[in-house]
Amino acid sequence: VNELAEAQVAIVGLGLMGGSLGGALKGKCGQVVGVARRRESIETALERGLIGRGALDLEDGVAEADVVVLATPVRVILKQLAEIGSLVKAGCLVLDLGSTKREVVERMRQLPRGVQPLGGHPMCGKEVGGIEAAEPALYEGCTFVLTPLERTSAEAVALGRELAEAAGGKPVLLEAERHDRLVARASHLPYVLACALMRVVADAGEEDAAVWEVAASGFRDTSRLAASEVTMTLDILLTNREAVLEAVARCEEELGQLGRLLAAGDEAGLRAALTRAREERMGWAGGRREAGGQE
Amino acid sequence: VNELAEAQVAIVGLGLMGGSLGGALKGKCGQVVGVARRRESIETALERGLIGRGALDLEDGVAEADVVVLATPVRVILKQLAEIGSLVKAGCLVLDLGSTKREVVERMRQLPRGVQPLGGHPMCGKEVGGIEAAEPALYEGCTFVLTPLERTSAEAVALGRELAEAAGGKPVLLEAERHDRLVARASHLPYVLACALMRVVADAGEEDAAVWEVAASGFRDTSRLAASEVTMTLDILLTNREAVLEAVARCEEELGQLGRLLAAGDEAGLRAALTRAREERMGWAGGRREAGGQE
Repeated sequence: VNELAEAQVAIVGLGLMGGSLGGALKGKCGQVVGVARRRESIETALERGLIGRGALDLEDGVAEADVVVLATPVRVILKQLAEIGSLVKAGCLVLDLGSTKREVVERMRQLPRGVQPLGGHPMCGKEVGGIEAAEPALYEGCTFVLTPLERTSAEAVALGRELAEAAGGKPVLLEAERHDRLVARASHLPYVLACALMRVVADAGEEDAAVWEVAASGFRDTSRLAASEVTMTLDILLTNREAVLEAVARCEEELGQLGRLLAAGDEAGLRAALTRAREERMGWAGGRREAGGQE
Repeated sequence: VNELAEAQVAIVGLGLMGGSLGGALKGKCGQVVGVARRRESIETALERGLIGRGALDLEDGVAEADVVVLATPVRVILKQLAEIGSLVKAGCLVLDLGSTKREVVERMRQLPRGVQPLGGHPMCGKEVGGIEAAEPALYEGCTFVLTPLERTSAEAVALGRELAEAAGGKPVLLEAERHDRLVARASHLPYVLACALMRVVADAGEEDAAVWEVAASGFRDTSRLAASEVTMTLDILLTNREAVLEAVARCEEELGQLGRLLAAGDEAGLRAALTRAREERMGWAGGRREAGGQE
């Protein structure tokens, strides 16, 4: 099957990402099968109309699938990739939704020849996880990164693109290592900064609770990512360690530079650095608005 | 005059904060006089009904005022405090809206005896400044810090409270140095982090423009403050230098600690640190929701 409309899509993992994808693909593919370990997740997904059929067993769930989507945390994906090769039909597209891609793609290289592997990373989410938080509109307008392997056929890539678009995303093809290096800066670094900020303010709060009275919208937005689910973020950080450490080190350099300018009272230098950051931020927001995104 | 309803309020500086305050106080005080250097600002404020009368000249604008509100950037406030003492009526309340309070309050100590000084910091704003962005609802629900001096009379503090509440804010009394230390962590540090993050991602973008394709809502929120007006933020950083440097240093420690745990692959330690930050963030957001605030 090379067309989504006829394809049976098995989604392994019915959390926020998997459940939402099921809902987003409803009516756009042959059937959506949801695979989960917890019976309640399947029941909720069925009740909410996010999947057409549920399976507690991986083998049963993926046996007839034309597309298998692994929608579990990265390190669970790595384990599932070791089992799935012998369970799927010849020609099956195996796509994952993990937030880091280098290790996933490395593991995908070991899949049997007949399987079509494709790394994927839809750049959407919420701090709240789980099937309860799932919503079919989650993928609407998001960048959906696809990281094909050399062995991935053009047809399989096309099917992956079709799926990403059917869910409402904008497919962007990137090499896995490049993806990981870029998200380390644009996505994982913001998370680490949010956690560090949260810790610094909470420490202040232990000495003086009035800090909570002065914590306003700036703190709220800058610290938002610290509420992310740790099981997911831990997987991300540990499977993208070098790139994250490099991004943190670069950020420490920038902080050090801003701190030195401030300590020296170098107003002209500080103004130049802050103005540059401001113009870059405004340019980025302007570009997003032009592209129809939200600021 | 000890009651707001009868007071003539002169607002010096018709930018976002001053213009919005004028609109917020409309009908709640005797008259709002707006003082600005640019004729267009006064015209816009009059057209938009944010002030009742405009004055281009400071002396003319504040001569009959019962309350003078300095709504200019911090270092302009410091200059204006040197002039204003001889221009106002005896008993006049001089309140400022500057984002840092220690230097302002120090300068307020030199005001003539008859004047009632009161530091103020409404914790609201937008990245976009200027009278065009002003809106009467800006102060709605915000913490409005007041930092009285020893010499400030109870009546003057009560009038300041009344004004803050009339604008829609929640008055919180804090000592100036304590205020500055707390906002360094909860407000100025997030700004510095946003700027550093923006610079790191923009640098990545110069080598590989695809970083902009993967910059999603996490980056958007964490970097938002980098778009703040530099004239304002420079004033803030330079008048709160020691506390900001201390906050940045504490944050560098936290980043270093998270980095060391990650580099060592210390999963348990990293999980503990990230979980702590998550719980603190969720506790804070929960507390805000209970208090009727927005998350």
